[in-house]
Amino acid sequence: MAKKKPLILVTNDDGVTAPGIRALISVMKQLGDVVVVAPDSPQSATGHAITINNTLHINKIYIDPDIDQEYSCSGTPVDCVKFAVNEILHRKPDLCVSGVNHGSNSSINVIYSGTMSAAVEAGIEGIPAIGFSLLDYNWNADFEPAKPFIKKIAQQVLEHGLPEGVVLNVNLPKRAEKDIKGIKVCRQAKAMWTEKFDKRTNPMGKDYYWLSGKFVNLDKGEDTDEWALAEGYISVVPVQFDLTAHHAIQTINGWDMK
Amino acid sequence: MAKKKPLILVTNDDGVTAPGIRALISVMKQLGDVVVVAPDSPQSATGHAITINNTLHINKIYIDPDIDQEYSCSGTPVDCVKFAVNEILHRKPDLCVSGVNHGSNSSINVIYSGTMSAAVEAGIEGIPAIGFSLLDYNWNADFEPAKPFIKKIAQQVLEHGLPEGVVLNVNLPKRAEKDIKGIKVCRQAKAMWTEKFDKRTNPMGKDYYWLSGKFVNLDKGEDTDEWALAEGYISVVPVQFDLTAHHAIQTINGWDMK
Repeated sequence: MAKKKPLILVTNDDGVTAPGIRALISVMKQLGDVVVVAPDSPQSATGHAITINNTLHINKIYIDPDIDQEYSCSGTPVDCVKFAVNEILHRKPDLCVSGVNHGSNSSINVIYSGTMSAAVEAGIEGIPAIGFSLLDYNWNADFEPAKPFIKKIAQQVLEHGLPEGVVLNVNLPKRAEKDIKGIKVCRQAKAMWTEKFDKRTNPMGKDYYWLSGKFVNLDKGEDTDEWALAEGYISVVPVQFDLTAHHAIQTINGWDMK
Repeated sequence: MAKKKPLILVTNDDGVTAPGIRALISVMKQLGDVVVVAPDSPQSATGHAITINNTLHINKIYIDPDIDQEYSCSGTPVDCVKFAVNEILHRKPDLCVSGVNHGSNSSINVIYSGTMSAAVEAGIEGIPAIGFSLLDYNWNADFEPAKPFIKKIAQQVLEHGLPEGVVLNVNLPKRAEKDIKGIKVCRQAKAMWTEKFDKRTNPMGKDYYWLSGKFVNLDKGEDTDEWALAEGYISVVPVQFDLTAHHAIQTINGWDMK
């Protein structure tokens, strides 16, 4: 008896027309029935924001003739997942994939990333989920070398599921397929951004700023995503959304808080 | 020799004029030199969003005659912390406090919360940080009963510091001071929101939606923040921003990803 085709929800943060999500859709079509709900405009660096003080507008769109259900949403990537699960899909999807992001979401970037927040939201709702990002910010980035690896990782998640409370953060180096050394399961490198604020003056003489930072890797470990990517591997970091620092509970219990 | 007064950065997500941040400022003035950088408008549920596709506007404001440096910022809570640290403060603050939020940030709410994301951003930048939230969404909530506890917890953090990579998520029950049973160090309860999308039609006949969810606690543990708050305790959850699910690395390494 033929196994039921998996139901796969696809979203991103660069917007529904971004080449990255179109590449991801083309791979997911090989693995199951695809439903797309993605932002109608770029939503990079929106983190886990949701739209509670504004209205949401959702439109059925027609981009890929193979896909019956494709929607654009005026909200954030997390809004897209919530709307898909609660208003569009008739059953819980077997997989949610987000991306492919134009640019890295390795290390601390996971926390700012709309791409990864969509995957995390799916995880909170009990759906196996993966965020994919390519280390190339260009709109015309070449997603072809990434495709076989994306397919392999998605197949493994469809086959094995994911441990409870865990989603995957997958980053792909900007390399030709033959130069990608393989897939490494990693931890998130300790890193941060040092920010510069570019101060300018508007035509009315009033100051304003642009945020513009520099990524600083503080971690020399060879088990991190930053190390793997620099060496030419694809990094896979299991990400959790129980943020409790369990190891710190005992220390803080020792304080005088009577 | 008198010890140098601590430098304390105060921010929030409800906006710089919210009663919650004014209450927090009034307590922090007792403990050190206070600098305020907070959003110029409500930024609830913005998570760890940052402003990279728009300009930022910062204004010096004058609300509290005791405070020389108070600023409103057009960006998110995380933008406020970044701007304060990089453009306003001449040294790293000894403490960053965010809140007091009008409404709970317990359990999974930590991940959507602008209040907590500001604290997390400070933590990423190596600053001991605490987010405070009161379980009362009203603008006219009574913050008086919370004040002695906020002071005590902030004093303990100033005295002991925090373990590396850890910030505190403090939630306060809506109770009279005498009815607050004490302070409990907890883990984040496993919970989620089941969403309803309230569908409406605009005057032009076009549908739109409001997100409106219901919080569902899936956790019966008596060591969680939800349990502590329901029992009348203040919950303190140590929160980390290394999101790696270290326990899952071995499982995923067992997959066939050659």
